[in-house]
Amino acid sequence: MRIPVLTNLLEESDALANLNRQTFDAAGVFVVNLMSSPGAGKTTILAKTIELLRDRGLRCAVLEGDITSTLDSERLAPLGVPVVQANTEPFGGDCHVGSHFVKAALDHLPIHDLDYLFIENIGNLVCPAEFYLGEHRKVVVLSLPEGEDKPVKYPLMFRECQACLLNKLDLLPYLDVSVPLLRERIATVNGGLTVFPVSAKTGIGLGSWIEWLELGRTELQAAKCGVSVSTS
Amino acid sequence: MRIPVLTNLLEESDALANLNRQTFDAAGVFVVNLMSSPGAGKTTILAKTIELLRDRGLRCAVLEGDITSTLDSERLAPLGVPVVQANTEPFGGDCHVGSHFVKAALDHLPIHDLDYLFIENIGNLVCPAEFYLGEHRKVVVLSLPEGEDKPVKYPLMFRECQACLLNKLDLLPYLDVSVPLLRERIATVNGGLTVFPVSAKTGIGLGSWIEWLELGRTELQAAKCGVSVSTS
Repeated sequence: MRIPVLTNLLEESDALANLNRQTFDAAGVFVVNLMSSPGAGKTTILAKTIELLRDRGLRCAVLEGDITSTLDSERLAPLGVPVVQANTEPFGGDCHVGSHFVKAALDHLPIHDLDYLFIENIGNLVCPAEFYLGEHRKVVVLSLPEGEDKPVKYPLMFRECQACLLNKLDLLPYLDVSVPLLRERIATVNGGLTVFPVSAKTGIGLGSWIEWLELGRTELQAAKCGVSVSTS
Repeated sequence: MRIPVLTNLLEESDALANLNRQTFDAAGVFVVNLMSSPGAGKTTILAKTIELLRDRGLRCAVLEGDITSTLDSERLAPLGVPVVQANTEPFGGDCHVGSHFVKAALDHLPIHDLDYLFIENIGNLVCPAEFYLGEHRKVVVLSLPEGEDKPVKYPLMFRECQACLLNKLDLLPYLDVSVPLLRERIATVNGGLTVFPVSAKTGIGLGSWIEWLELGRTELQAAKCGVSVSTS
């Protein structure tokens, strides 16, 4: 039996991502695709990040990706920022956010009144790494309880990202985990990855992360004005 | 453009799984498919489980599923049990262990000299839940630092499994996590899931898990002799 198949599904996905990127660039919105294992702390990090950026007068929105449920959107709603929930279950239960979800979400976001858009991807250290959504930066959150071996066991994610948040630093005294060893292993996979040890719970380390986000946005604005700025 | 596609890939996968199951049943080996997010503690639980079963004179083997690396196999090798590593990266980097990997592994395992075979699936709370490998039981490990919302956000995994190990109980004093609330949420997704709060690090709670494994194997043996035993 033969059935028609789009052989260029990945190309279609990338084409949509490129359209998304054009929209983001034109609006001057800096977009971050946040990925991690389930429970690494993406939503808590986002809540703190949104507050810290707001303190600096910067406006954020969130695209929440989940297979099902609106639990994360409900956690972020009290912050008063625009949140769009994208659930993949009604569409086959995809294990990652697709560029078509991002494109659809843009209709529901005040894109011209934003400085940052955060895409909270589905909790999965494997599949989301394979898909470009149009974002300016890919960021992986690794929580310390997950252990030191993850960069080596899930190398694609760590290769694709530009920054890594090592979260749950507050638990370090109770774990058999070495941050230097973890850094070493990250470096063997991607020496260019910027690493931020943080605790979203206590707030420690988040200042450098916020500065990194601000530098990224400055770079985007400079590019829009035709100015080249080196921020990395 | 039209290309040939096997429309029954999932059927093929299930057919291989059924063959695996026949092999397991004929050999009297009780097979457990162990799944979780990355870093929830599957390997540490396996190491402790193998030792505890060995103390009871029971023989184990492990099929280690990873995208890449042999880190987990190396951790289990000192236990002196047969370990087969299945890496998916050379075959496209699948995000789950497939029934064809299990079938291939059987050639490298002394299947007739075993009481238990543990399949340590790839760290992923999404995709592995979709595939039957021929196992007698599916078990999910959820580590407490991952939070209370995971059963609701990744319901398929919790629906498919027969047991859930709540691992890293030793960290409970340092987390904002409630085990009763977690149990409640698990029950809303799958009221039939047997829940074992454990710490693979300290060993607490593992006795009930070991008994559950022994009951499962007893059930398998009874079925082989045509005797019906209710153990759940």
